[in-house]
Amino acid sequence: MTKIIDFQTDPSKYRHWRVEYDGPVANLYMDVDENGGLFDGYQLKLNSYDLGVDIELADVVQRMRFEHPEVKVVVMRSGKDKVFCAGANIRMLGGAAHSHKVNFCKFTNETRNTFEAAEADSGQKYIAAVKGACAGGGYELALACNHIMLTDDATSSVALPEVPLLAVLPGTGGLTRVTDKRKVRRDLADIFCSTEEGVKGKRAVDWRLVDEVIPNSKFDETVQERAREFAAASTKADVAEGIKLGPLDKTVGDDGSVTYSLVEVAVDRDGRTATITLHGPDGDAPADMDAFTAEGDRAYMLRLARELDDAILHLRLNEMELGLLIFRAQGDPEAFGAHEALLLGNKDHWLANEVLQYWKRILKRIDVTSRSMAALVEHGSCFTGILAEILWAVDRSYMMEDEFEGDNRPLATVTLTDANFGPFPMGNGLTRLQTRFLDDDAALEAAAGRKGEALEAEDADALGLVTMILDDIDWEDEIRIFAEERASFSPDAMTGMEANLRFAGPETMETRIFGRLTAWQNWIFNRPNAVGPDGALQRYGTGVRGDYKMERV
Amino acid sequence: MTKIIDFQTDPSKYRHWRVEYDGPVANLYMDVDENGGLFDGYQLKLNSYDLGVDIELADVVQRMRFEHPEVKVVVMRSGKDKVFCAGANIRMLGGAAHSHKVNFCKFTNETRNTFEAAEADSGQKYIAAVKGACAGGGYELALACNHIMLTDDATSSVALPEVPLLAVLPGTGGLTRVTDKRKVRRDLADIFCSTEEGVKGKRAVDWRLVDEVIPNSKFDETVQERAREFAAASTKADVAEGIKLGPLDKTVGDDGSVTYSLVEVAVDRDGRTATITLHGPDGDAPADMDAFTAEGDRAYMLRLARELDDAILHLRLNEMELGLLIFRAQGDPEAFGAHEALLLGNKDHWLANEVLQYWKRILKRIDVTSRSMAALVEHGSCFTGILAEILWAVDRSYMMEDEFEGDNRPLATVTLTDANFGPFPMGNGLTRLQTRFLDDDAALEAAAGRKGEALEAEDADALGLVTMILDDIDWEDEIRIFAEERASFSPDAMTGMEANLRFAGPETMETRIFGRLTAWQNWIFNRPNAVGPDGALQRYGTGVRGDYKMERV
Repeated sequence: MTKIIDFQTDPSKYRHWRVEYDGPVANLYMDVDENGGLFDGYQLKLNSYDLGVDIELADVVQRMRFEHPEVKVVVMRSGKDKVFCAGANIRMLGGAAHSHKVNFCKFTNETRNTFEAAEADSGQKYIAAVKGACAGGGYELALACNHIMLTDDATSSVALPEVPLLAVLPGTGGLTRVTDKRKVRRDLADIFCSTEEGVKGKRAVDWRLVDEVIPNSKFDETVQERAREFAAASTKADVAEGIKLGPLDKTVGDDGSVTYSLVEVAVDRDGRTATITLHGPDGDAPADMDAFTAEGDRAYMLRLARELDDAILHLRLNEMELGLLIFRAQGDPEAFGAHEALLLGNKDHWLANEVLQYWKRILKRIDVTSRSMAALVEHGSCFTGILAEILWAVDRSYMMEDEFEGDNRPLATVTLTDANFGPFPMGNGLTRLQTRFLDDDAALEAAAGRKGEALEAEDADALGLVTMILDDIDWEDEIRIFAEERASFSPDAMTGMEANLRFAGPETMETRIFGRLTAWQNWIFNRPNAVGPDGALQRYGTGVRGDYKMERV
Repeated sequence: MTKIIDFQTDPSKYRHWRVEYDGPVANLYMDVDENGGLFDGYQLKLNSYDLGVDIELADVVQRMRFEHPEVKVVVMRSGKDKVFCAGANIRMLGGAAHSHKVNFCKFTNETRNTFEAAEADSGQKYIAAVKGACAGGGYELALACNHIMLTDDATSSVALPEVPLLAVLPGTGGLTRVTDKRKVRRDLADIFCSTEEGVKGKRAVDWRLVDEVIPNSKFDETVQERAREFAAASTKADVAEGIKLGPLDKTVGDDGSVTYSLVEVAVDRDGRTATITLHGPDGDAPADMDAFTAEGDRAYMLRLARELDDAILHLRLNEMELGLLIFRAQGDPEAFGAHEALLLGNKDHWLANEVLQYWKRILKRIDVTSRSMAALVEHGSCFTGILAEILWAVDRSYMMEDEFEGDNRPLATVTLTDANFGPFPMGNGLTRLQTRFLDDDAALEAAAGRKGEALEAEDADALGLVTMILDDIDWEDEIRIFAEERASFSPDAMTGMEANLRFAGPETMETRIFGRLTAWQNWIFNRPNAVGPDGALQRYGTGVRGDYKMERV
């Protein structure tokens, strides 16, 4: 698997999904092209999916929000007759490297979280209209929708057969959503998750696995009726027209570097480090949201978001040995603040809301990126508001103190704005500053009291906003030593350590999916009973059950 | 490692710990016998520990509560000069099977939770008096104490060097307690957890790693002063005399069966199933707590608790291939209710409180036992109150409905009592019924409304108290099929599934330790970077760092 995985696509390139727009209702059809797998060696039968299918889905979900703000209800359904979706492709899972499996699961989880949250964030509610078999990752797709309708016939059921069939978990949120979102009683969940054939009909409603079950003859009609009802009940404002998301301005170099219009990724393979530089605004903030809308996907705040998002996904899947991501931000802090302020001051405007929600998702994507991460607050930097959030998403931050010889950029500063006190919660439901200053209200208030000030190193340090401030004498050595040290540690230990240290405080369904559920799945993805030569994934389809070592751990 | 691990010990057998009782203050010395390892192949140098050391510690903690209720403060300290505790023994970890490592960590976690909770539950506060190196599991011992005092000298520090040194996590609560209990800022925690040599002196206080740092010359004196202060401030009632915990009445058969006075464990190795039968009271409930105290460790409720606790631990460590534990309870439900009621009605009595707190711990131990578990509510059973909690700790419960041919025991019933509505929270802070009926207040109230009734099958089913009710025709087959099915699944998938399904609802530090932290640690315990022939655990002490595969997962 050495080809570069590209997360950019558009409807003209889709092989697996299509959308029919019908006013406030969009019908989204999953119709996977068997021969359209991202890699060789497997066929995507029965609407099973691989990363490529999910990249398209993520694109659909994103475009729905920016290009089709008129949509209030999305009906997710199958384009095939007898099957809704069979889940992640088993042959792909059986053949993929551990790291690919884990990163694939993470991306699919993020995509599911995104459309699950679309109702609360953007007024776009997803309905799963399930006809035919809906198994494993297929049911997990449905679980992430906020209303599940099941047709009542002999072949339509919902199932999580991973445990009995494959010796792995329903790891894309399945176990967590069954207990915590659907609130299925745990002993019934135990039966459900250990029954290959799943549950259908009335029992599926009784057990809370679906919201309604409908006679097959009335299914399509009832689904459209329900969609229209939900659309009519929606409080989402009517928006006539969206903006177009054009292709990114992106160049990948042979050395691994990636260059966008506002984001640069420099790669040091020997040092196993990627440095991501975010550039400040290249023009004045739009005068108002009309002007912003007119700029469309060229608007600074949206362009930066899309480029940063793509850069992170690119590094995750294509540069697995780069263990350290270093974030820099260079530009005018006040100019960045002006661009951000337009959005924060117009949260009720649909596009301002969408751009802010998108930033929320990107910051969360950084939170769960399993690489060591640091931020360098250098002279000339613009860690303001949204960009300052990155300082507390990463594991450590270093800030320049006082003048550096031969460096005539403006002194390093950090500027807090309203962005840092509410609109960008982490997966745990707290802001990054609340998590950082867990239960320390005094520290939080002290920071809030300095909103709007360009805080130089000593102040930023005193307020606890950065990990370490360093002067000209120490800067280079300290950072070099940190990077070398980090590169020398076991990457696995780093992953485990960071997954624990980053999410203090309360847990939510989201943190449980990325924490508890994912960690157990990754453990199982290392166990011979699942992935060994005689394990369930390899033996799948042979009719022979995996040869299990029966010791219980 | 085929010898039977015995969790029963007493002070006359200790090799690693000793206690000096001084009125309300107990000084607990860790003084590990290098040659006292539970298995061959390693020496317990520098106060490092293995399971045997921890079995003694668990015994000390337990006896402190039952035999020494006069104690209000426990000072945990080292009996060695230059070292507090070096943590889990690395050679033991390097040599142990995955399953042993995991079970060892679980037991040590449970022991730490027990003394951490002793302050809230029993008014016994643990102070860690740290002199000398306090590293890894050593610092995790201190973290579980509720006050950490560090001496200020050149060699005394606290450290979590697992990640840089061993490529594993501080998995005995370390990472979780650093962020969530001590509320160390996450970037400082990142530095701390990746620094082999740890942190000492004032910085340890500034970073919240310890509560106070004290000049070496005044250390012992200040520790005793602090202990007396805490004892004086304690609201724990004065109790002159405890009760003695004598040896258990226990026989282990060659076939794996274990027989106690009130608990029987029958083992079916081929079916990979253990059946644990709990017997109802063999005598009348004591008239009052004086009578209960006079019975001492022979009192039914305490005896049953101790035997059940030992049985679970025995099965966990000695019978790793028994994947299914089946609980039965045979006896008079009313009689059990009378014994239980004495304790519930006298919660303010120190011994009633201790027995109830002990049941709380045992029920939590069942919750986190990584075996599939079921309960059989047969005719003649006494699933009342505390014992009924087992029905919702296990993964499924089956209940007999109507008369069975040739079975003249009283019809199967379940009786709810006050025990089911508060005093026995799970690790997530909810009762088992609250977790079972997550956010379904109506179901919870319906159950509460039937307190005190001996509910037969139909009622228990209607109230959602059992998974399935079965009559004479289906009973045997259903249970056989369930047991066979369970035995056929991958044990790893079961572990992962159950760890996710059992803990719906909120998370606490406790659930995070057993969920997120443990799962990541188990994952790492399968990774070549940690446990492979060139991994860090094998290479420890050779001066050569582990040879790491640098791909980041």
